[in-house]
Amino acid sequence: MATIVFFSIRRTTQTVSRRCFSSHLKAPATARHTRLLFSIHGLSSTLLPETRWFSRGTSMRFLSHGNPGRSTSGRIRKGALALSGAVAVTAGAAVAGLLANADHFQRAQMATKVSQNEEQEGDIVERCQGFMSPPVTDVNVLQGRKEEMSTKMEMLIMETQAEFCKALQEVDGGTFKVDRWERKEGGGGISCVMQDGKVFEKAGVNVSVVFGNLTEEAAKQMRSRGKVLKGKDGKLPFCAMGVSSVIHPKNPHIPTVHFNYRYFEIEEEDGTKQWWFGGGTDLTPVYIDKEDAFHFHNTLKEACDKHHPQYYPEFKKWCDRYFYVRHRGETRGIGGIFFDDLDSPSQEEVFKFVKSCARTVVPCYLPIVYKHLNDSFTDEEKDWQQVRRGRYVEFNLVYDRGVKFGLATPGSRIESILMSLPLTARWEYMHEPAKGTKEADMLEVLRNPKEWV
Amino acid sequence: MATIVFFSIRRTTQTVSRRCFSSHLKAPATARHTRLLFSIHGLSSTLLPETRWFSRGTSMRFLSHGNPGRSTSGRIRKGALALSGAVAVTAGAAVAGLLANADHFQRAQMATKVSQNEEQEGDIVERCQGFMSPPVTDVNVLQGRKEEMSTKMEMLIMETQAEFCKALQEVDGGTFKVDRWERKEGGGGISCVMQDGKVFEKAGVNVSVVFGNLTEEAAKQMRSRGKVLKGKDGKLPFCAMGVSSVIHPKNPHIPTVHFNYRYFEIEEEDGTKQWWFGGGTDLTPVYIDKEDAFHFHNTLKEACDKHHPQYYPEFKKWCDRYFYVRHRGETRGIGGIFFDDLDSPSQEEVFKFVKSCARTVVPCYLPIVYKHLNDSFTDEEKDWQQVRRGRYVEFNLVYDRGVKFGLATPGSRIESILMSLPLTARWEYMHEPAKGTKEADMLEVLRNPKEWV
Repeated sequence: MATIVFFSIRRTTQTVSRRCFSSHLKAPATARHTRLLFSIHGLSSTLLPETRWFSRGTSMRFLSHGNPGRSTSGRIRKGALALSGAVAVTAGAAVAGLLANADHFQRAQMATKVSQNEEQEGDIVERCQGFMSPPVTDVNVLQGRKEEMSTKMEMLIMETQAEFCKALQEVDGGTFKVDRWERKEGGGGISCVMQDGKVFEKAGVNVSVVFGNLTEEAAKQMRSRGKVLKGKDGKLPFCAMGVSSVIHPKNPHIPTVHFNYRYFEIEEEDGTKQWWFGGGTDLTPVYIDKEDAFHFHNTLKEACDKHHPQYYPEFKKWCDRYFYVRHRGETRGIGGIFFDDLDSPSQEEVFKFVKSCARTVVPCYLPIVYKHLNDSFTDEEKDWQQVRRGRYVEFNLVYDRGVKFGLATPGSRIESILMSLPLTARWEYMHEPAKGTKEADMLEVLRNPKEWV
Repeated sequence: MATIVFFSIRRTTQTVSRRCFSSHLKAPATARHTRLLFSIHGLSSTLLPETRWFSRGTSMRFLSHGNPGRSTSGRIRKGALALSGAVAVTAGAAVAGLLANADHFQRAQMATKVSQNEEQEGDIVERCQGFMSPPVTDVNVLQGRKEEMSTKMEMLIMETQAEFCKALQEVDGGTFKVDRWERKEGGGGISCVMQDGKVFEKAGVNVSVVFGNLTEEAAKQMRSRGKVLKGKDGKLPFCAMGVSSVIHPKNPHIPTVHFNYRYFEIEEEDGTKQWWFGGGTDLTPVYIDKEDAFHFHNTLKEACDKHHPQYYPEFKKWCDRYFYVRHRGETRGIGGIFFDDLDSPSQEEVFKFVKSCARTVVPCYLPIVYKHLNDSFTDEEKDWQQVRRGRYVEFNLVYDRGVKFGLATPGSRIESILMSLPLTARWEYMHEPAKGTKEADMLEVLRNPKEWV
């Protein structure tokens, strides 16, 4: 029961100039670990009114019969019938119950394979039809520079947003509110939020594509990370884009998930262009379920292993380090993967890895949602969820570099930055679960991160 | 119907050494605005179990017939029957309804006068009997250095805690949980928390008295504020103490209140000792009530005016600047007063001012609580309160210097730092009240701070 979303591409009045650098970029591998790290979202300003996109549910399903290997990225494939949009749908739909005889996790594995096989990238205009909204950059501009990484990445983040939103709508029955916004200084974004749904208390999936010059504050942050970048007259032209999402379900047995995949380009005074990718997917359960934890981590590991045997173990550790609530002495959740400053072995190879990760989001998470969809829960379990939500807020407001950067940047779109906060949260003084309870088991895992695969 | 609280002083096993500097301190007035600013609370570690203090309600009331002028601070007045403790009770009790024929605010004015008249400071041991728990510093140590500012201030913050807690217990009917905790590095604190009461969703009144050497992080913070302090072998012995409180009521028509009064001593390499006071009281209503706002600000203004005509106007502006949620473009509440680095005209004069402020807390706030105690409210009003609570959390976790400092300091008592967070909060995506509503009126005031007196 897949739902294909049709809509016409409605042009906004905005003129998105072509500002992402047009040449294929190179950067020395040594630049790793030295670059500006921040979540790209929310660097915005004007919300365009009345640009909500409507979906019309129609039962159809696309299956790919194309070449299962890597595509020659950017080549036009007219007639491919918006395949990438279809990828978004098939993955969600497969998970949703098409393969009715398999269990949740088997179905997810099959969905993953479908995703991985559909590497073709069709015509830009047709691919855009599967999105929640037209891309941030004008479609004609994207078509004119199909070969460039900024185009490939913008298409990937738009597809990821659509794929995930549709999978969530499928399970919830609700509809995402789609807000397009413009950033005065350059670029904009598309925020999809579903609030107080049947299954999800608050679900946000955000895309942003921003460009301009690095602010002094951003440049300073970069320098504090060890890298001195020289700009023309103190200005560093940059282009940044990403997709990020936080999903808070109502049922305390369904975990919260977060993911973020981003791409960054920056131009130095001497014309040197640097690029890097970052991202990650991590899970924050309220109660520990070892089967869920294994499935989540194993799905990520399989995606990583296709690219480098060290990716999963390294990025798993990085995730535990990054999502650490220091003042509580506990991690935010049970982790997943997290990486940044990734710029080797090649731009194309890193992009392929990021694509694998992005396409793993639905098979990582949706089977867990379906598994616990009808779990009953008590008031006490709901309270514990609310206390954990409080910790989530603490991490996001106190430590998350993306949030901190966004809040400190004038012109940020606050609603997009803070849509990661739960609808409700709770702080109880001196809350400590009794020994031997499920709540204490959860805390034990957060205080001593485990290996799940 | 005043309730006097009796209890015996239960000695804990801790040995509180005498570490606050024993000489009367002087510092140049030029040191203003250059010193370390932070809330003192939560620099702790070990919670002492089973040191909960019980109150036994007995209907009695003390009235002061002593000298209404300034006391010769520190002189022993045996037989004064724990007058300061009684001050705490009379103030709360007067507000609570003894003067039944006056309205809330008239009664508050009378209560203020009672407080202001009772300036005598009796015997240390007897005064301690009115506290929620014995002072942090051993009573014998305090008696041995009665004339010192660190003793006077510790007594004041203990009295303020007791006065406020008892006034809140009186209105709520509930009892504060009293936790004593020790700080491994020196000192400790007393946290009083009432959670999920009849009137108060969460009420926290915290005292702490800490000493030791400034950490490198703290010293760096100080330097970033313009002041280079030279320590012996890089160490700066300090002593810091304060009382702070945040009260979140259940009824959305009763505002949240916060206050904090603190004292700081620091010793430089050459033996120069610097001291300063800081503090403030501010109100965060969910709905604007001009009469409440006038009463609150006017009570503060009257306390300030007795000391300096510029105190209220300056500290009112400072408060609006400090409690500004920059990313929202709004203040946290309708302000009050806020000051820091206050070290002139003299230590004694500043202490008298701080004492006036501390004694104004109950008459500022309690009449407002009583006025709205039985106000009915709708689900929508409760929701709006929860959204405003979310903003409160944002301010406290993102901007509050005390919280930031506390979270960054190893060995902090997190529960005391974060007891300022509400029991529950809410984040709605793109929440904006419709024009002309009471919610929009509130926002208007937060976006454009007003003069209330």
